[in-house]
Amino acid sequence: MLEKLSSFVELARRKKPKIVAVAAAEDSHALEAIKWIRNDGLAEAILIGCRNKITSLAENLKFDISHIEIIDIPDKTEACKEAVRVVKSGQAHILMKGLVDSAIYLRAILNKETGIAASRLVTQLAFIESPHYHKLFAITDAGITITPDQQDKATMIAQSVNVLHQVGIAVPKVALIAAVEHLTPAIAATVDAAALSGITYDNCIVEGPLSIDLAFNKASCRHKGLHSQVGGDIDLAILPDINSANVFYKTVMQLGGALSASTLTGTAKPVVFTSRSDTAKTKYFAIACAISQCKD
Amino acid sequence: MLEKLSSFVELARRKKPKIVAVAAAEDSHALEAIKWIRNDGLAEAILIGCRNKITSLAENLKFDISHIEIIDIPDKTEACKEAVRVVKSGQAHILMKGLVDSAIYLRAILNKETGIAASRLVTQLAFIESPHYHKLFAITDAGITITPDQQDKATMIAQSVNVLHQVGIAVPKVALIAAVEHLTPAIAATVDAAALSGITYDNCIVEGPLSIDLAFNKASCRHKGLHSQVGGDIDLAILPDINSANVFYKTVMQLGGALSASTLTGTAKPVVFTSRSDTAKTKYFAIACAISQCKD
Repeated sequence: MLEKLSSFVELARRKKPKIVAVAAAEDSHALEAIKWIRNDGLAEAILIGCRNKITSLAENLKFDISHIEIIDIPDKTEACKEAVRVVKSGQAHILMKGLVDSAIYLRAILNKETGIAASRLVTQLAFIESPHYHKLFAITDAGITITPDQQDKATMIAQSVNVLHQVGIAVPKVALIAAVEHLTPAIAATVDAAALSGITYDNCIVEGPLSIDLAFNKASCRHKGLHSQVGGDIDLAILPDINSANVFYKTVMQLGGALSASTLTGTAKPVVFTSRSDTAKTKYFAIACAISQCKD
Repeated sequence: MLEKLSSFVELARRKKPKIVAVAAAEDSHALEAIKWIRNDGLAEAILIGCRNKITSLAENLKFDISHIEIIDIPDKTEACKEAVRVVKSGQAHILMKGLVDSAIYLRAILNKETGIAASRLVTQLAFIESPHYHKLFAITDAGITITPDQQDKATMIAQSVNVLHQVGIAVPKVALIAAVEHLTPAIAATVDAAALSGITYDNCIVEGPLSIDLAFNKASCRHKGLHSQVGGDIDLAILPDINSANVFYKTVMQLGGALSASTLTGTAKPVVFTSRSDTAKTKYFAIACAISQCKD
């Protein structure tokens, strides 16, 4: 069981040091996170972006970058392409987002020839530390897939569970979230959930539809008479669509005092997928999370 | 500005005492809430349900109900019908839910001949007190309308704003929530939100699409360069559909330490619409909220 985002730092310590390619590295919080992860000896970096801005930000942070490779590409689209190339070629192990729109960053990742997508569906997987829950959990997909159909959701389960295995959760408990806990034909998400929870999976337990109270609170399960292996102890929540997933993610952060570390599923290499507004600490945990997803 | 759910108790003190008809009153938390609201002199009650159970629960609560009218109807469906009749006839001012399924309670309210719906659309309106927000806000619709279309959302705005006016919020700030803050044709909720926010409304300000971070956090608005009268200071959130609304409501409660008081919009009289699992305190605030919605 992973209790906090800092658990990823402990997991990362068990891996060989990695190299992180930062796309549009002229980002103060990203640079500070890189400074910390280097100080910990967990990873080296290749900074791709506007050299002048990177140098100036590093000075402000008292971060000596004289021994770090910088690839001077001020254009954000080109910087993302180059960062993806560096990861795809094996020069770096992990891709990280700097000061660039998600859409531009994703386009470089998803490019059919030069990108690093390993699946037809790449989804955001956010690990969340909430002061109101007893362990870390993950959710998908708050940022990319707009209206996943049943097949998409099956893919989302498989890919997300794969990442959870990589970070050491042996048998993830997966909840397919909906507004209600019963199959309700008028609510399509419950039909998908009921169908998908009927499948037997290897090395994970899938249940649904489950409402948020049942997913996160054992007492609510008892109150509603639900006998569930998953309810109150979930490791992963699959949300019905981008609106509900985004609402969940931002509510738990804005109105729940939670922290998150966000990566992608369905890519050939681990990808850090933070928001521009994330703090240096959150970005540091996200890098550690990506390192935890590496094989060795 | 209403800061906390207890503000409703202050508002209720300015009204004449009311009579609350409780449907399926054999509910310990509902009875305790009625005990407190009577002790405050804010309302009298008519208890409709199983007399034996009501009497026994009242004894446990040391609640002297010898002077309270009890209508002995053990059948839940019939008890709901009778409670609605009592309110519709004017014998009581407010309808309250006891130990009964929401579906049964709603059916009695929505019955075309004997019910008290005043609109083709009756929606749940939950007032929420979050430790991470500076004032009370309301959301709709976490429990009834499954996939509201644009016209439904216009009705939801009008009816909810009407209730907010009743509780003294002169010019409610309304946010139409979606996953993103830009009109994105592939996300229908943003199209609805952009259309509805283009309308000029009387005595409220409507904006959208807004994501949750922009709705609840002024710093996020500044960070994303959004000049908004509503962002960071909303009084009302209209969610895209039942999944996102229910996810929001339950997340802010389960993972955000929030409290809520829930009523309905679109009814001829104020209706308390709590969950069976709500505490006595929450039910007490919900009654006070309903009293605040009365004219005098």
